[in-house]
Amino acid sequence: MAQVDQFVTVADTVRPTIAARGKPHVVIIGGGFAGLNAAKGLAEAPVKVTVIDRRNHHLFAPLLYQVATAQLSPANIAQPIRSILRKQENANVLLGEVAGIDTQARTVELDSGRILAYDYLVVAVGATHSYFGHDEWAPMAPGLKTIDDATEIRKRILLAFEHAENEPDPRKREAMLTFVVIGGGPTGVELAGAIGEIAGHTLVKEFENIDPRDSRILLLEGLPRILPMFPEALSVDAEKDLAKFGVQVRTNSLVTDIDEHGVNIGDERIDANTVIWAAGVQVSRLTQVLRNLAELDRAGRVPVERELHIAGHPEIFVVGDAASVKTRDGKPVPGVAPAAMQEGKWAAANIVRAVNGHSYTPFRYQDKGSLATIGRHQAVASVKGRNFNGFLAWWMWMVVHVFYLNGLRNRTLVISQWAFSYLSFGRNARLITGEQPKTLEKKS
Amino acid sequence: MAQVDQFVTVADTVRPTIAARGKPHVVIIGGGFAGLNAAKGLAEAPVKVTVIDRRNHHLFAPLLYQVATAQLSPANIAQPIRSILRKQENANVLLGEVAGIDTQARTVELDSGRILAYDYLVVAVGATHSYFGHDEWAPMAPGLKTIDDATEIRKRILLAFEHAENEPDPRKREAMLTFVVIGGGPTGVELAGAIGEIAGHTLVKEFENIDPRDSRILLLEGLPRILPMFPEALSVDAEKDLAKFGVQVRTNSLVTDIDEHGVNIGDERIDANTVIWAAGVQVSRLTQVLRNLAELDRAGRVPVERELHIAGHPEIFVVGDAASVKTRDGKPVPGVAPAAMQEGKWAAANIVRAVNGHSYTPFRYQDKGSLATIGRHQAVASVKGRNFNGFLAWWMWMVVHVFYLNGLRNRTLVISQWAFSYLSFGRNARLITGEQPKTLEKKS
Repeated sequence: MAQVDQFVTVADTVRPTIAARGKPHVVIIGGGFAGLNAAKGLAEAPVKVTVIDRRNHHLFAPLLYQVATAQLSPANIAQPIRSILRKQENANVLLGEVAGIDTQARTVELDSGRILAYDYLVVAVGATHSYFGHDEWAPMAPGLKTIDDATEIRKRILLAFEHAENEPDPRKREAMLTFVVIGGGPTGVELAGAIGEIAGHTLVKEFENIDPRDSRILLLEGLPRILPMFPEALSVDAEKDLAKFGVQVRTNSLVTDIDEHGVNIGDERIDANTVIWAAGVQVSRLTQVLRNLAELDRAGRVPVERELHIAGHPEIFVVGDAASVKTRDGKPVPGVAPAAMQEGKWAAANIVRAVNGHSYTPFRYQDKGSLATIGRHQAVASVKGRNFNGFLAWWMWMVVHVFYLNGLRNRTLVISQWAFSYLSFGRNARLITGEQPKTLEKKS
Repeated sequence: MAQVDQFVTVADTVRPTIAARGKPHVVIIGGGFAGLNAAKGLAEAPVKVTVIDRRNHHLFAPLLYQVATAQLSPANIAQPIRSILRKQENANVLLGEVAGIDTQARTVELDSGRILAYDYLVVAVGATHSYFGHDEWAPMAPGLKTIDDATEIRKRILLAFEHAENEPDPRKREAMLTFVVIGGGPTGVELAGAIGEIAGHTLVKEFENIDPRDSRILLLEGLPRILPMFPEALSVDAEKDLAKFGVQVRTNSLVTDIDEHGVNIGDERIDANTVIWAAGVQVSRLTQVLRNLAELDRAGRVPVERELHIAGHPEIFVVGDAASVKTRDGKPVPGVAPAAMQEGKWAAANIVRAVNGHSYTPFRYQDKGSLATIGRHQAVASVKGRNFNGFLAWWMWMVVHVFYLNGLRNRTLVISQWAFSYLSFGRNARLITGEQPKTLEKKS
């Protein structure tokens, strides 16, 4: 409490400012797709907006796997939230971690002790990966949610080949050239396909003692098919396409253990030095503080009314991956970027309605379809009941992703890097950074 | 020694290969400007080349300060050594750390225990910063030699403004907005100028509680003037130009202590949360293993003959920042990129001569002049006795740096990012990554 007292001056300076302007204060927690779209949706409203995020950048998560696979640089898909909202006069950005929410006093407390009073709260904290109760697997099988995750995975993939090049023992070398991706959703499919391209094209002819094409790339999925959110025919297509890039798909394969040297699927053992986790979704812990207002689902999602606020709390909206939203016919809205954007905008629109004396309207989800890319000329798309695969789907994937990318600068850089890679089969960002084991060859 | 035995098979497979081909083995330690140019210079020679580096990438160090100041992405100035040498059939790249050199047995031992026999050795291990016996200053005042250094400095600069935005105490806030760059050589000048641009242009209007233009940026130099390798008139110009970007230059200012909250210059105290070290050069420790062959200078440099090899050891060349080379008139060759490139090429040419039965020729240094940029439209250049400053020097600086950058891809990306920044006053890579203090505001 001493911390809070210390910054009571700050809280005090915030409150009178709001009171003086007579404008409601909207606090948005999270600068991802949902939070950012909520903020932008309030640009013209007579409110004061504060966006809190523990990172300084908004991340274009659908391209994160390309950072992890050395295709793009981190900055190509990340932009400072401050700079995105620079021209929005009523918006303010705070870098910080939220320590708690007092829904009675209507305040948000930051880790620093600073307290912000809100009139409306938009919780857009997003999700992270879930290890299904096996958090001890995390160091061996990193997931892909942040820039730091991506550079860590990039380092592991690139180091695997370097380790193998230096390894005299053929059995160890084989494990070093075995890559296991766990989870057959879009991220898992995209990662596995990209590793296939690295092994099959990018690195060919660069080593003396190994042939990267000897790599074994496994995509493990617990369900009977990969890309379960797509029509079944596209799952089959995707599996065939992955095979072209040297990826073996194993369905009905539930991982039962992971250690430093590989994974177990029941009794079966797969020796692999590189394991990547692309399964399971769990909402950021922060939603736990809302659990006395609404019963969270297993993944920690907060159920919301059709208007996107918590039942009985019209001043608290939950949007994006943190929310459990149902469509009019009772189906869950999927945890994808377009849904998060739409929910953020809708919450903003409802706040604008309330400020102007109108009542909330129920969210209508527009299903924009599903897209997943596998590699050069190969992708699958399902849009409004129509299925696409191959070259056309691949083009659609690229156009859509460039279109939604924030900022002309990033669009230009991404397009030019894609063009370079396409022409050269190369990768733009084959950087091993951060600490690395001093010794490349295992001494044990 | 057990380690060595374990990999004796590897060493054995290397030796017979060389013997079988009947080709001399040239081992190059370091993939910087000197090492890489030595490798390239041997492309057509009847030798086998092995380049060893502990990082997987060659770094275009002259632009590293632009990564540290959020202008470029790390991958823009770094390229895998493997990919640079991909088409050079006689060259092989090894990621690893050299543990020792046995100049009697003519072998290089890697950290892993692997041993490589050499016929010619090229030591191109480069330099790092020296804290003049105060290594305890390193955590408080990071230097700029690697990509990881650059992203660390970038994080500190960007976080400083975020901290200040959240800080209610005006005295603490002032220290958070004080940036001290120690060392008035080109790197220090370029860093200070770029911080001035960030504070004076990039971040303006993005904060609510602070005005980044209130930042205090100090460039400290122990000698009587900055850029001592330039003609005196240009030092004066540079100082004036830096003032335009809000940088205060303090010459004859020797830092006597650094702690977490600032620096001391004798009795004077400067409170500053961000301190960057751009002074002092020290050669990588590896040259120590050569000290019984030649007396190293204070910075650890290895003195070499005019032909660039160690006296009495015509098979061991030392090039780049690790070497102490004298020109024909006895002046020391400066530790700059063009000199490293020329020396690497020269060592390669001498090896080619030896392999073809000719004798070595003495190195001739071509002084290409000195360039340092300060910021938008401001730079200084001294080329063949002629001095330039302002817009013309700035253009020269850009053209030269793009010209020497490796690879069309990087050139295109760098030019387009410079163009974007120029037009928008923005920065391309304002990313805070890596671990950061959980709490932004200091709780003490």
